[in-house]
Amino acid sequence: MASAIIVAAGSGLRMKSARPKQYLELAGLPVLTRTLMVFDDHPGIENIFLVVSPGEIEFCREKILSKARWEKEIILVPGGKERQDSVYEGLKAAGGYMEDDDIILIHDGVRPLVAQELITACIACAEKSGACIPGIPASDTLKQVNSDGMIVSTVSRENIWFAQTPQAFSLKRIREGFEYAFANRLSLTDDAAVLEMYGLPVRMIPGNRNNIKITTPEDLHIAAALLENIEK
Amino acid sequence: MASAIIVAAGSGLRMKSARPKQYLELAGLPVLTRTLMVFDDHPGIENIFLVVSPGEIEFCREKILSKARWEKEIILVPGGKERQDSVYEGLKAAGGYMEDDDIILIHDGVRPLVAQELITACIACAEKSGACIPGIPASDTLKQVNSDGMIVSTVSRENIWFAQTPQAFSLKRIREGFEYAFANRLSLTDDAAVLEMYGLPVRMIPGNRNNIKITTPEDLHIAAALLENIEK
Repeated sequence: MASAIIVAAGSGLRMKSARPKQYLELAGLPVLTRTLMVFDDHPGIENIFLVVSPGEIEFCREKILSKARWEKEIILVPGGKERQDSVYEGLKAAGGYMEDDDIILIHDGVRPLVAQELITACIACAEKSGACIPGIPASDTLKQVNSDGMIVSTVSRENIWFAQTPQAFSLKRIREGFEYAFANRLSLTDDAAVLEMYGLPVRMIPGNRNNIKITTPEDLHIAAALLENIEK
Repeated sequence: MASAIIVAAGSGLRMKSARPKQYLELAGLPVLTRTLMVFDDHPGIENIFLVVSPGEIEFCREKILSKARWEKEIILVPGGKERQDSVYEGLKAAGGYMEDDDIILIHDGVRPLVAQELITACIACAEKSGACIPGIPASDTLKQVNSDGMIVSTVSRENIWFAQTPQAFSLKRIREGFEYAFANRLSLTDDAAVLEMYGLPVRMIPGNRNNIKITTPEDLHIAAALLENIEK
């Protein structure tokens, strides 16, 4: 079986909003409520661990969890200082409910448009290979720019992918990876990087272009448009 | 003064549409008509050179140019085989109207949401530095993936920017760059790469998140949402 950690402990500084972005509304429901609903609806997901800032547990219960009826218990977990600390808190909480060989999915709370099919594909791939993340091949031209604002080079976009979530791993493997990263004081850009640093293989599968991360006010408008189109 | 080359000779294979993407409608007007309107409205732009596939010149006159009233003459230029050949045809056509030190902007026909302010900023920057492009700092995690679909590494996104257009250059400098590239059979991902290969400095300035390139059906929906938001 598989379970999911939804990471929503971010402060949303880029949103120019007093409320963290995961609490903003998208077509009548908070972004985070929508994200949780996708995992709650998925038959392959057993438990859901929602990691939020320690000071927002009550707020989350009242403003996020109260907005929908849940099939599953949503287990609230207080997060840590950085994103990686929050994920690790989620992993520790999940350890009390799961076997070592079970699959844990780690997903950004601000990606509410994740498709059921993508969750299914990530679980299946992680069951086979132990670690799997979705992504999109880069289509833009990438430039390396120096601190004076001058272009240093054009980065070859061949074989470059943008990582998405959910990132899926065997619980044992990702926990070991995190312990290795903390012991070596490694800073992480995403969860797969933990295993890459640890020297374990991670498979990339095609993600979904709709599965955007909501980090700016423009993204909310984009998400609303995509949602309307998905629901058609 | 500055002039603009609008490149619209692409076939739009990713659009799953019989019509190239620049001819599809966005909120009641073809994408390409909208792109041209922004440059037509800009007081700093003198001439507009529209590069299209040789077989689509008439179609373009009837279906794109007929949809709006133009302040400026839109000069139709038949494009070449690859994007870089099309841009070079545009540069040759522009040479008949411009001085060597004038600024030429090269813009994707499928970026209709480019802001007037961004065009102004690109012209001002190119007048000062000779070559300037807009871009957005990378916010996603980038992964290098091998041909078996396994992640090889996490690419540091520090100082990595996604290039946008319009890319602005002194006419003489970019023409020389293209001649150098063709003479050395270099393949180019964008126009700034021509000067980078030639060893000339190119400045990066902040672009605009709305200024997306429309290459998939999802992009059309996103663009419609952004447009609605801009017009509010």
